[in-house]
Amino acid sequence: MSIINRATPVSSSLVGRFLDVRGLTDTLTAHLSAEDQTPQSMTEASPAKWHRAHVTWFFEEFILRNDPTYVVYDETYRYLFNSYYEAVGPRHPRPERGLVTRPGVADIGHYREYVDNAMIGLLERGALDDASIALVELGCNHEQQHQELLLMDIKHLFSTHAFDPVYVDREIDEAGEIPPLTWRPITGGVTEIGVPDGASTFSYDNEGPRHRVYLEDFEIADRAVTNAEWRAFMGDDGYRRPELWLSDGWAHIQQTGWRAPGYWREADGEWTTFTLSGRRRVVPDEPVVHVSFYEADAYARWAGARLPTEFEWEAAALTGGSARGQLLDTTRCHPGRAGTTMIGDVWEWTSSAYLPYPGFVPANGAVGEYNGKFMCDQHVLRGASAITPPGHERATYRNFFPAPARWVFSGLRLAR
Amino acid sequence: MSIINRATPVSSSLVGRFLDVRGLTDTLTAHLSAEDQTPQSMTEASPAKWHRAHVTWFFEEFILRNDPTYVVYDETYRYLFNSYYEAVGPRHPRPERGLVTRPGVADIGHYREYVDNAMIGLLERGALDDASIALVELGCNHEQQHQELLLMDIKHLFSTHAFDPVYVDREIDEAGEIPPLTWRPITGGVTEIGVPDGASTFSYDNEGPRHRVYLEDFEIADRAVTNAEWRAFMGDDGYRRPELWLSDGWAHIQQTGWRAPGYWREADGEWTTFTLSGRRRVVPDEPVVHVSFYEADAYARWAGARLPTEFEWEAAALTGGSARGQLLDTTRCHPGRAGTTMIGDVWEWTSSAYLPYPGFVPANGAVGEYNGKFMCDQHVLRGASAITPPGHERATYRNFFPAPARWVFSGLRLAR
Amino acid sequence: MSIINRATPVSSSLVGRFLDVRGLTDTLTAHLSAEDQTPQSMTEASPAKWHRAHVTWFFEEFILRNDPTYVVYDETYRYLFNSYYEAVGPRHPRPERGLVTRPGVADIGHYREYVDNAMIGLLERGALDDASIALVELGCNHEQQHQELLLMDIKHLFSTHAFDPVYVDREIDEAGEIPPLTWRPITGGVTEIGVPDGASTFSYDNEGPRHRVYLEDFEIADRAVTNAEWRAFMGDDGYRRPELWLSDGWAHIQQTGWRAPGYWREADGEWTTFTLSGRRRVVPDEPVVHVSFYEADAYARWAGARLPTEFEWEAAALTGGSARGQLLDTTRCHPGRAGTTMIGDVWEWTSSAYLPYPGFVPANGAVGEYNGKFMCDQHVLRGASAITPPGHERATYRNFFPAPARWVFSGLRLAR
Amino acid sequence: MSIINRATPVSSSLVGRFLDVRGLTDTLTAHLSAEDQTPQSMTEASPAKWHRAHVTWFFEEFILRNDPTYVVYDETYRYLFNSYYEAVGPRHPRPERGLVTRPGVADIGHYREYVDNAMIGLLERGALDDASIALVELGCNHEQQHQELLLMDIKHLFSTHAFDPVYVDREIDEAGEIPPLTWRPITGGVTEIGVPDGASTFSYDNEGPRHRVYLEDFEIADRAVTNAEWRAFMGDDGYRRPELWLSDGWAHIQQTGWRAPGYWREADGEWTTFTLSGRRRVVPDEPVVHVSFYEADAYARWAGARLPTEFEWEAAALTGGSARGQLLDTTRCHPGRAGTTMIGDVWEWTSSAYLPYPGFVPANGAVGEYNGKFMCDQHVLRGASAITPPGHERATYRNFFPAPARWVFSGLRLAR
Repeated sequence: MSIINRATPVSSSLVGRFLDVRGLTDTLTAHLSAEDQTPQSMTEASPAKWHRAHVTWFFEEFILRNDPTYVVYDETYRYLFNSYYEAVGPRHPRPERGLVTRPGVADIGHYREYVDNAMIGLLERGALDDASIALVELGCNHEQQHQELLLMDIKHLFSTHAFDPVYVDREIDEAGEIPPLTWRPITGGVTEIGVPDGASTFSYDNEGPRHRVYLEDFEIADRAVTNAEWRAFMGDDGYRRPELWLSDGWAHIQQTGWRAPGYWREADGEWTTFTLSGRRRVVPDEPVVHVSFYEADAYARWAGARLPTEFEWEAAALTGGSARGQLLDTTRCHPGRAGTTMIGDVWEWTSSAYLPYPGFVPANGAVGEYNGKFMCDQHVLRGASAITPPGHERATYRNFFPAPARWVFSGLRLAR
Repeated sequence: MSIINRATPVSSSLVGRFLDVRGLTDTLTAHLSAEDQTPQSMTEASPAKWHRAHVTWFFEEFILRNDPTYVVYDETYRYLFNSYYEAVGPRHPRPERGLVTRPGVADIGHYREYVDNAMIGLLERGALDDASIALVELGCNHEQQHQELLLMDIKHLFSTHAFDPVYVDREIDEAGEIPPLTWRPITGGVTEIGVPDGASTFSYDNEGPRHRVYLEDFEIADRAVTNAEWRAFMGDDGYRRPELWLSDGWAHIQQTGWRAPGYWREADGEWTTFTLSGRRRVVPDEPVVHVSFYEADAYARWAGARLPTEFEWEAAALTGGSARGQLLDTTRCHPGRAGTTMIGDVWEWTSSAYLPYPGFVPANGAVGEYNGKFMCDQHVLRGASAITPPGHERATYRNFFPAPARWVFSGLRLAR
Repeated sequence: MSIINRATPVSSSLVGRFLDVRGLTDTLTAHLSAEDQTPQSMTEASPAKWHRAHVTWFFEEFILRNDPTYVVYDETYRYLFNSYYEAVGPRHPRPERGLVTRPGVADIGHYREYVDNAMIGLLERGALDDASIALVELGCNHEQQHQELLLMDIKHLFSTHAFDPVYVDREIDEAGEIPPLTWRPITGGVTEIGVPDGASTFSYDNEGPRHRVYLEDFEIADRAVTNAEWRAFMGDDGYRRPELWLSDGWAHIQQTGWRAPGYWREADGEWTTFTLSGRRRVVPDEPVVHVSFYEADAYARWAGARLPTEFEWEAAALTGGSARGQLLDTTRCHPGRAGTTMIGDVWEWTSSAYLPYPGFVPANGAVGEYNGKFMCDQHVLRGASAITPPGHERATYRNFFPAPARWVFSGLRLAR
Repeated sequence: MSIINRATPVSSSLVGRFLDVRGLTDTLTAHLSAEDQTPQSMTEASPAKWHRAHVTWFFEEFILRNDPTYVVYDETYRYLFNSYYEAVGPRHPRPERGLVTRPGVADIGHYREYVDNAMIGLLERGALDDASIALVELGCNHEQQHQELLLMDIKHLFSTHAFDPVYVDREIDEAGEIPPLTWRPITGGVTEIGVPDGASTFSYDNEGPRHRVYLEDFEIADRAVTNAEWRAFMGDDGYRRPELWLSDGWAHIQQTGWRAPGYWREADGEWTTFTLSGRRRVVPDEPVVHVSFYEADAYARWAGARLPTEFEWEAAALTGGSARGQLLDTTRCHPGRAGTTMIGDVWEWTSSAYLPYPGFVPANGAVGEYNGKFMCDQHVLRGASAITPPGHERATYRNFFPAPARWVFSGLRLAR
């Protein structure tokens, strides 16, 4: 059993793919100072320099260490940059990642180069077996995932600063027309869900096995919920009416005092939100983003609708066309105006708990810890966001976070 | 939409049903002192006298208050004995239920009598409409649920005492032969799950709507996992091998130090467990009980199997015969020897998250808060336990608790 | 070295003294139900029935167990009712005293009788040596201390109830004239503080050794600060001006939101306070009570004065006459109108940290844990309160609590 | 009333003094990377770059802002680098100092230069009045205090790293002979304590007013307690015998599991300690360091002695000669072999609570918050440590920390 669902064909393009992915990480962190890359703003987030080192360690740990000629860069990195792989051995406590000042960003740059060179050598020698090639592909996808996490985490870190630091400069978005929401009917029945065995493109192990699910007929909204619509929910006392909320959600908003999406703030009657370009006015026709599962669920109830299951979502996406909303554009890093694509702009909370598909068995060894062990008390998000690297998005992708999480670029789409 | 799935037919037997249920609560608490009935041993538990008052308040709030001739017993009780119904108004904070010393147990006895008399009058006058009759039936089931909670909570309270108080005296169980586990094959396909509309017996709203689910073929164990089998898991370092555990579960057992089921203790190489009859030796051929979802899941992985989904469980139960294991026997309050019935002895964790069935809509008004608002980050248990009142168990029943809960009479059954 | 500062002379009156003290405890709890006596409303408080048993255990542990003919009432009580004596062995965890439902109040009544009878027998046989007689006197004082704690704890417990239970019925106090505060000058110099060796009346070990302290000349207020004066402090934004507060105090009131003394509440522009006779209007000319050290210190700074040291307080008390303010009157349990006595009505926070007097050495054995081990981060209060049993008060008495404590009957007197 | 006890005479040497102090801060941080200077390893500690900016802000806030020609460097720094001065306005939350990545270390370097230039200009113009000159002297002492804090905090930060980073390289200390402890008798009586009014050298406000204290005769040890002696305490089960401990201390070591001084670790039967030069063997004849007040107090009780009061300590220091133990030497940063000086090597816990001297009144304005508001539940340490900048130590100096603190360079000296 493999962590991914197919054996990637050996090809010279894998070197290019590897270099592209590695290069994007460097691009994303090029304008972050050593100070910016060091802190951990909450337990769930990680320092930028940790992300840079961890994704590098992944290649070293799971691929290069199998090469008897490879000389490990620094044995202490195994301890410092392992994230959660119990099978690999002891590791630095997660809540203290922000205290590891050494190695510094320059050292981590050297580490990246060293591993890149070793990897390129290995790839160019053509000496990798299928399992190893599959792990290279996994490592590239792993790094893409961390590119999104890195941006989420930097946004969270910068948002704690009193004076709104800017990650990327960009112009102010102009407000436009809000398209009226329409409903797209989908016919149910026994439906195949997930990635088929032997698929020719990469997917994570949790996207399979492909299996049958019975769906009733349903309707799904043609676009995500917008900021303007969310303001209507707020204006209708959405955050103050217990009947709209799950019990856990109601308790959570009492405790936290949440009265608006994450990063929103009101001053002088106007709502602004913190973005990777600093604090900006809330743009009405953009999809709402940084809402928790609790809020998404309450909104749907208020709107007389519900969240789709992840199976409904996938069925809808497969008939929804190949167009994409905003994916990662390093000059923007923020959703575009709400459009009619299923994938892009914001991750969409579904009503589904994150559980294994029937017949799911994790891979052997440490990479088997990649996905399966998190299948408890998390909620599935589908689609992709404005900070998801292009090429990393697909209709079967299962993203997952706990219900209160909202530093994710998370929004919602209604079903009924 | 009703909180229950049918309109209970008006019948004189409803008075008898009501009196039976009410009487059992009195029986269960007759040998608890005022002191025993007062404390709250943890936030999730409630004092016995609170349970007695709360189930009474339920009838007063949802039925008697609709009768214009009814005189409320004490208006302060609405505040003191509302559990979680936001629509009913403010209520006493849950973590402080153990501080409400007034009314005392005698007052609560009078309150029970007062409400009983009013209810009997109402029932005998035959003046109730269908909706109200359905609420009486709901109130009876609600009280039965609380009978089980009351026993769980008393067991937890007594277990905190250094000298093992006894709730019910009984003889020592003799150890017997452990039957070898066998597998029962079940054929899959599109399967109907849940209670049909218009069913002639009571069920909760969360057991419907009846809907179709696609099941693959599977096998299910003919009995629950036993203490002897659990000892084998412990002996094989089951609690020390991270590869067997969900990430949340592993973190939880590190933090709590759990190395055995709830209430178990080792002394001089022998394992005992706290029961409602005091501390007893662990009996090998009884089903293991007081394990969390985390532990159940880890055990299943260790055993090379898995937990069934709640749908698989229900499909198996419908073909599993009508025999019952141990249900509530007030002279025992403890599981019997593991047998081959699906229902009884211990609740069985399933792999399913507690989510609404397709088309589920909670009832209007306060009783709509009964089930639906808890559908988040909880796990479904099926079957019934040795402290479930007979008549309250059924194949479609969906019990639910958070993953770490183990003061429940919870065990497990394997599938594959 | 003895825990008390003198050997009490053997006298028949010791039996009378013993019976008086024991009887007062019974009087205080006679109108508390079993339910009232069971819960623990916060870690610092204890259940009434625990107090009743613990003071009894004290006599059993330290006196009766030395009598070879004595048969211990129940060996489990040593574990259940030891408060903090490490030398006596393991004990029930303090935060869980409210979960010990067994023994119940009736059992504890029997225990009290049993120990009383054994003690009387012992006392009447005249077989006690001086050390044991001193321990009887210590046990009586210990029980008096717990009488005050019991009333503090019941007040706290009842205050958590939404509907203001009444411990003792009494009439409404009429408001009167507030006497203008005047200052009494005291001449300093080398001053003897504490109880002399060989004093003929009881005192705790922490009241000695008598030693010399150098005092500057100072002035002390002729009465405690009143509610009316405290209202002026509140009205002058006393709780909102950081310059008045110790850093710890300011942090504490931000965190807790305190804006008035303990038990005070405002409704419709009127301030009430919870008393042992239920919720009452704040009476302007009574001394303010239930303020923390932080608040007392901030008030003094606001008033352009300061708290006296405990040495100044004692020097002033020794020249302040023998009249007493309100001490425990079981029909009142509340301070009287502020008068010009030093002792009575409310305990008075001093500026002194609770530290050993020079040359202080705790007694050998378990009773040596009575006082000395708490000499860290606590603050001395002097005087006595309206719930201190008469006869337990004296000018050298050193009461002590942590700075945030305010379930104590604590007020203040100014110095400059 | 001034924050310091004298008006410093205007002199050209003040510029030199200022430059010396500022230069030492730069020296101490020169070999710390941007990454090292950014994190906050616990709430009580601060990032190195925060220390560098805060001490600079102190000069800007309290001196330069009074100069109408001065242009503030950056108005946001007032918010970011105010430590606890409520009178100055809102400020960044203390627990989040490690998240302020901007300004970075280079910016802070520029800020330091800018303020230095402005200060030098001001000092050279000779335009400062006496009060301002006193504030310059205060600012220099404030920066010296922060130099010690910066080293304490870097040591704590580095100690959290799994691989023992080195702040300063130095040779291994050789073990030597442990001098036998001897007792020095001191004659008591009315003794003057504190700094006289009009003293010609700097002191903090909390070191006065000079006042009379009555001391009994006592003896004080001629040196601090050594590591060898501490090992004897550990070997005699010092950490496992409740009778040796204050109640709070015993609770604290149960909760934390402390069984040795801070930074100590045992491996293969050998004890090492983390130092600013990495992990080193514990040297027997060095003074023990990084013990809490709880531990110091327990040790003294075990040794049949006690801690001196701060008044005894000061009286002893005034007759103890002017020699110094180890003060800050940037090539060492660690105590030397225990010698017979009173001042140097390690701060020495006294038995005194940190309280105002009689007649103490804080300065007006924000600098009045410097010392007085912390006089609650802290304990006085006297002397100086191996990381105290030379010239900052004196016999009347009152250092203070909470009882559990042990990232301080804190040891103890016995009295009896």
